[in-house]
Formats: sequence, C-alpha cells, structure tokens
Amino acid sequence: MSSPQIKYYWEDLQPGVIRELGQITPTAEDIKDFAGKFDPQPFHLDEDAARHSIFGGLCASGWHTCSMAMRLMVDNFLSQAASQGSPGLETVKWLKPVFPGDTLKLHHSIMESRPLASRPDVGLVRTAWDMFNQHGDKVLHMEGYGMFRRRHPATLTSD
Amino acid sequence: MSSPQIKYYWEDLQPGVIRELGQITPTAEDIKDFAGKFDPQPFHLDEDAARHSIFGGLCASGWHTCSMAMRLMVDNFLSQAASQGSPGLETVKWLKPVFPGDTLKLHHSIMESRPLASRPDVGLVRTAWDMFNQHGDKVLHMEGYGMFRRRHPATLTSD
Repeated sequence: MSSPQIKYYWEDLQPGVIRELGQITPTAEDIKDFAGKFDPQPFHLDEDAARHSIFGGLCASGWHTCSMAMRLMVDNFLSQAASQGSPGLETVKWLKPVFPGDTLKLHHSIMESRPLASRPDVGLVRTAWDMFNQHGDKVLHMEGYGMFRRRHPATLTSD
Repeated sequence: MSSPQIKYYWEDLQPGVIRELGQITPTAEDIKDFAGKFDPQPFHLDEDAARHSIFGGLCASGWHTCSMAMRLMVDNFLSQAASQGSPGLETVKWLKPVFPGDTLKLHHSIMESRPLASRPDVGLVRTAWDMFNQHGDKVLHMEGYGMFRRRHPATLTSD
C-alpha cells in the first residue's frame, strides 16, 4: 500500500511536533483579485475606502488568508502525505489584518491522533494551523481534522 | 450614523430568521483555477486523477466552497449591512463534495445576538451558514460570528 513519494502516513503524524511550512507574500493585486471574485467588500478592493475603514488600509479577505495557508499546507506537507481529505475545522480565528507585502509563515502541529473505528485503513489527526506575519504577530489560528491512510491497517475487531 | 444604502444594523438581526442568499454554479474551470492557486491537490485539478480518488470525480477545494458562500453572503447580505467584520468561526464542516455544474444555494440564519461590552456602538451576532446542492444535500455548514454597527449605540454604564 505504501508509495515512494509518500513520506507521511497516519503513524508518522505524532502529537507535539511543530512543522514550519514555508511562507507566502501576497501583493495588493493578489488581494484585490481574490476579493473581486469572492469577497467584494470595499476594504479588500480599494485603497481609499480601506484607509477609512476599521482596518486602516487595504487588507486580505479572511478567506484569502485561509486559502494562502492551504497553499503552504499542500506544497509543503499534504503533497507528501497519504491524505484522505478533511471533514472540517472547529476553530477559525482571524486575529489581525493581512496587508499587501506582509510575509506570512505557517506553523502546523498535530494536537491529537486516533484510529478511525469505521475505517481500519485510515487514522484521524487533530491539527493546529498558526500563521504569523513578519512582525511575529499571529494573524490566523485554525484547529481542524485531517484523515490519513495508515502504513499498517488495523486488524478488524468486533469494535 | 445611519446611511441610506444600509438596510441591516445590529438591531435588525434577530435570532430565528433564515435568509436565502442566492445561488452559484461553479464550472470545472472555476474549480481548477481556484485549486491551481490555493489547493493544488490532484482531485481538484485533474479529472482522471479525481476519478480514481475517494471523491470519484473532480471536486472543488473546501476553501473554494467557503469562498463561494462568502461571495453570496457579500452580494446578498453584507453589502446592505453595517458590517464591522468577523473575528472568526467556530465550526466549518465540509459534508459532501462539490462537483462542476452543481448549483449551490446559501441559507443564513442568526443563532444569537448580544451587545459588545467593549464597544457600545457595535453588536455581535452568532450565525449559521448552510449551503445545499441541487439535490438538496447539505454540502457545507459553518457557524461563526459577525460584528455590526448599532442603529442606536448603547448608553455607557459602569459595566
């Protein structure tokens, strides 16, 4: 079942390790392009309107910030993992605005790990995602779930 | 403080009302375009790879589904509301895959409403977002918070 390009199976994802998953720097154009498609509020589209908003300047849609975190997650982790998708998240916190030219770093950690009773070949992990800007301020915190194939499927029991 | 284009202040957002916030139909190109930028996993980018995946066919990134819900939210609600942004969400559930040509409808409801002690001109609401496909299957459920300006700011007290 194992594949040479896959580095991380469920058994390899143990609680306590923090992975640094690279960095990304959105431009004003990136911010406006995302907002034009998905979140056309004035403070994500127009510098003048943004200057007079609660944010004080053009800033990224929260969904853009989440999506940038996902890009780092895929490039630097999921592409090497036996990922089976995610049922969802239990926390998303947009803690600070993200401005053009901010350099965002993603930290990812495993909080809990357990087998899936319904699927002996898959395990579940609960993870935390934390994104920081170049000033060291946390801009995004998320906690969610990921499913990963097991290197060694469980033996079926009556449970 | 009120503005003619604003229909919804905090006082207007009472628990119990379900709003239908329009619909959106992503194409295969939309799905691949989003995934190419933010979630380049094979089942979001390539029909053949997707056919052999757990999803059985090309499907949208979960972040794309959230972002499409946000677009409906902005066009059909937030653009007419005295919105002051969101501190975050407490639940995101990706319940079913979203395939090209699916027509997605968004329902939005207010679950709770309360004044913000720290800002007498702003109130907080807890909201549920539910997105359904053309078969009536729920594909996305989210619960989160929104801040809205008040029509009538609270009188400051020693609290």
